[in-house]
Amino acid sequence: MIRTAGIISKPIRERICDVVPPLLQWLSARQIDVLFDEETRGCLGFGPEGMSRAALGAKIDLAIVLGGDGTLLSAARAIAVHDVPILPVNLGALGFLTSVTLDELYPLLEEILSGKCHTSVRMMLDAEVRSNGTSSGRKCALNDAVANKGALARMLDFDVYVNQDHIGRYRADGLIVATPTGSTAYSLAAGGPIVDPELDAFVVTPICPHMLTNRPIVIPGSARIDLDFAAAEEPVYVTLDGQTGFQLKAKDRVTITKSAKRVTLVRPNKAYFEILRSKLRWGER
Amino acid sequence: MIRTAGIISKPIRERICDVVPPLLQWLSARQIDVLFDEETRGCLGFGPEGMSRAALGAKIDLAIVLGGDGTLLSAARAIAVHDVPILPVNLGALGFLTSVTLDELYPLLEEILSGKCHTSVRMMLDAEVRSNGTSSGRKCALNDAVANKGALARMLDFDVYVNQDHIGRYRADGLIVATPTGSTAYSLAAGGPIVDPELDAFVVTPICPHMLTNRPIVIPGSARIDLDFAAAEEPVYVTLDGQTGFQLKAKDRVTITKSAKRVTLVRPNKAYFEILRSKLRWGER
Amino acid sequence: MIRTAGIISKPIRERICDVVPPLLQWLSARQIDVLFDEETRGCLGFGPEGMSRAALGAKIDLAIVLGGDGTLLSAARAIAVHDVPILPVNLGALGFLTSVTLDELYPLLEEILSGKCHTSVRMMLDAEVRSNGTSSGRKCALNDAVANKGALARMLDFDVYVNQDHIGRYRADGLIVATPTGSTAYSLAAGGPIVDPELDAFVVTPICPHMLTNRPIVIPGSARIDLDFAAAEEPVYVTLDGQTGFQLKAKDRVTITKSAKRVTLVRPNKAYFEILRSKLRWGER
Amino acid sequence: MIRTAGIISKPIRERICDVVPPLLQWLSARQIDVLFDEETRGCLGFGPEGMSRAALGAKIDLAIVLGGDGTLLSAARAIAVHDVPILPVNLGALGFLTSVTLDELYPLLEEILSGKCHTSVRMMLDAEVRSNGTSSGRKCALNDAVANKGALARMLDFDVYVNQDHIGRYRADGLIVATPTGSTAYSLAAGGPIVDPELDAFVVTPICPHMLTNRPIVIPGSARIDLDFAAAEEPVYVTLDGQTGFQLKAKDRVTITKSAKRVTLVRPNKAYFEILRSKLRWGER
Repeated sequence: MIRTAGIISKPIRERICDVVPPLLQWLSARQIDVLFDEETRGCLGFGPEGMSRAALGAKIDLAIVLGGDGTLLSAARAIAVHDVPILPVNLGALGFLTSVTLDELYPLLEEILSGKCHTSVRMMLDAEVRSNGTSSGRKCALNDAVANKGALARMLDFDVYVNQDHIGRYRADGLIVATPTGSTAYSLAAGGPIVDPELDAFVVTPICPHMLTNRPIVIPGSARIDLDFAAAEEPVYVTLDGQTGFQLKAKDRVTITKSAKRVTLVRPNKAYFEILRSKLRWGER
Repeated sequence: MIRTAGIISKPIRERICDVVPPLLQWLSARQIDVLFDEETRGCLGFGPEGMSRAALGAKIDLAIVLGGDGTLLSAARAIAVHDVPILPVNLGALGFLTSVTLDELYPLLEEILSGKCHTSVRMMLDAEVRSNGTSSGRKCALNDAVANKGALARMLDFDVYVNQDHIGRYRADGLIVATPTGSTAYSLAAGGPIVDPELDAFVVTPICPHMLTNRPIVIPGSARIDLDFAAAEEPVYVTLDGQTGFQLKAKDRVTITKSAKRVTLVRPNKAYFEILRSKLRWGER
Repeated sequence: MIRTAGIISKPIRERICDVVPPLLQWLSARQIDVLFDEETRGCLGFGPEGMSRAALGAKIDLAIVLGGDGTLLSAARAIAVHDVPILPVNLGALGFLTSVTLDELYPLLEEILSGKCHTSVRMMLDAEVRSNGTSSGRKCALNDAVANKGALARMLDFDVYVNQDHIGRYRADGLIVATPTGSTAYSLAAGGPIVDPELDAFVVTPICPHMLTNRPIVIPGSARIDLDFAAAEEPVYVTLDGQTGFQLKAKDRVTITKSAKRVTLVRPNKAYFEILRSKLRWGER
Repeated sequence: MIRTAGIISKPIRERICDVVPPLLQWLSARQIDVLFDEETRGCLGFGPEGMSRAALGAKIDLAIVLGGDGTLLSAARAIAVHDVPILPVNLGALGFLTSVTLDELYPLLEEILSGKCHTSVRMMLDAEVRSNGTSSGRKCALNDAVANKGALARMLDFDVYVNQDHIGRYRADGLIVATPTGSTAYSLAAGGPIVDPELDAFVVTPICPHMLTNRPIVIPGSARIDLDFAAAEEPVYVTLDGQTGFQLKAKDRVTITKSAKRVTLVRPNKAYFEILRSKLRWGER
């Protein structure tokens, strides 16, 4: 039962002013209250006061996210703890995650209200940094956790462990640990496989490995992955979903596990592979 | 409780005459009966009469397979229906599957008899050929089912479906559907990822795809994969584990699913990744 | 000075009857005689008697080839010895080699007659098979010479030499030796680089190498490449441009060198990279 | 005629004190003067005063470089302008460039003095940065010029031109322009081909391209390559040989051409492919 919907949009004023008012009207005609995050409210210029995304997530039964994959990723991380279904609508180019077009928005909302919509539940990952054994923070990601070298550095030496077993010493620009959702993002660019979003698994993809036999590995979602940079002679940077990042301190270790949080995406009645085909142009010659 | 062991060896006379007699003595000293498949018995030249591998599988509690990965693959397909644990011992170069050396054979046998050995259960796949909707045979494989073009043909056009969803039209030399076990065999050579053997999944790897965006895909082991070669203008060949093969007839379709059969490998107390590191030389510079 | 033009077309009756009569009229209005190869003449159903492509090449000042890359490759091999410029016109989908559209045909013919057209000279390769040191035939190719295993075989072991230096023992499905022109054909599908057609070089690309460090190599066009299959336990097949092939006999060696023949392609005033971008869709998101 | 040799070593005190004194004695016994760069002289602790590498290059007939590929690269860039032959001796692990072992040092010196040694001349590249059309500096490299994004940035959009022709808009982590010598360094890790050092060519290899069809390209050494980052929304960094780098300013363009400088390496009588085989372990199973 959808009583309150939250709207989170990429802050493009013209697009918001174009898309949001009719959406408000449509929802209001169906007795659905609408809330905004601060940025969207700021761009729109009217309506109920905006609130932080974290607060927003606690008060809504459906999040309508307008934008591209980047907008969805940051919205998902912010509200995932509340397990609110997300309807991701692309405002521009087709995304892997935001495959719903504006034309499909209202038909899909109808389906959602009638309880008939399709959803896809996506696992997230947690990356925890430990300094001398003490956790110095944990962050979650829908796509990937990436460790890499600085722009002017040459390469990193690091060790990877899966469930305490030593996978190997890598010499590479860095390493990507991706969820199935993230397998079509940066990991794909680095040579990783596409992983069906239903699979409970991680992809561990080295970035430009100097040892040519270091190939992407797919491991169970139940695994614990430890990255040890003690052998690295250069600063190491970690990013989540390519959006939030930080520099490790010497001797820091990064532990990656499946998150307790997850994301429920409302999706049009298109097969996953249909989106893949469109995005990667598999249908064409 | 091991009462009867079967010995299946690569038919290299000198190796068999070297390795098998002391093994017989060791087993006999522990009141364990030994049976052979026909070829091994023929090479050895003495002992109880050999029998077909299928018959052998029904009478033994443990299969000791001597040889390389090729010997193991054919033995596994032959006896998998009986779900007998297999102890694979390499007689030559280290294999991904036959990582047990002769030095480790007797200590491992001790562990097996005391019920303390480690095992790894591996999924198999079934490939069924359908002509006009009628099944014309089903074969199983531990590593992979491969469809490819003839040596003098140019390329194949074919369609791949996962659970009836159209993944895409491929233009390639062929396609590999591999189990996790097979992910380190031919699929790896064709650019596929390494998949942890514990994962319940298939890897679908195109061979030399002319569409450069056709990348390997990892899908759930519960999926049904259909290969449709109606668009192919050249003869199509299918092989299982690279060992048994046949030519498709026009309009034949191939359906690949997880097999009800599976293989239980006795393994030394080495992590999977340790074998990977040795085989792919990840440990070295 | 163009006195006689030869027309070689892909034998698609409707396309020929559509395209050729106005072309004949256009050429005849400019006092240019036209000759056909047998197949084109057969499809067209009127005009001067057709002749073999080899004979045709000796009598013409310009070859107009209508079709796709496949038609061009076979026409080029047949007439290359006469060094006649070729105007390749695609009748269907854009090809790497046949990038001239029907719309561009007449403007380009004008340019050719006025001596102002752009051309691109392409190297060819010769592949010579030697049995016990004796040559048993030499064939040329514009794209590539490919050695590979049969469809039901597992892999080939073979040795590659460059100028008598041993590059290495390969274990793979086969090997591609491509000219720069061929670098965007099969070699690209097998993971090879794109090589600028102006470069005097070969690309040596393994097909599904089991040794993951076996990477494509680019070597000078002056090099002599020897493929030795003495270690192969399976039959070996060799194809030229994916169009003509044969099976090697045991102990045969294949020697590949730059051919004395070459192909001069008339091309529209498009940069090479423009064609590349269109074919590989580099311009799009 | 070798009258004066320069010694440039990786500054590892124990190795220098081990290797250099007998080398001095050997050279002195043959009336060859020896000069040092400052760092080597500092580590050694005795001998004639050290001088800058640039000054050293002007006074010597042979440079003996002790260390790994990194030491050679920086020494080569410093003295290349003087076209002095370089004898690169590895002090540790075999390098692609420093394939001469200490055991081979004296036999090779004998060959050099008798004028019989083999050499390999390697092209270098120049990278010039232009701000608003004005050059703000030019640097040379023996291996490669690399443009890439910062560690926390997402990706770069940039345009590449070859001889003013637009190759395409790239979306990637960065781009490598490598000489044949550099083709076995970072470019190989990023998926580039191996290029024979005798070939006059560049390899242009994208780093983690988001457009999967963006493949490595090999272009003539005579080409001018322009990188335009006007479309990039993130800072761009350029490094030469992975050793010296700088950050571009907005609107800067980078132009890469073959350098007038080149490096002459003295090499043992091993084929290039022999070194390749050893380094990449092609000889092993």
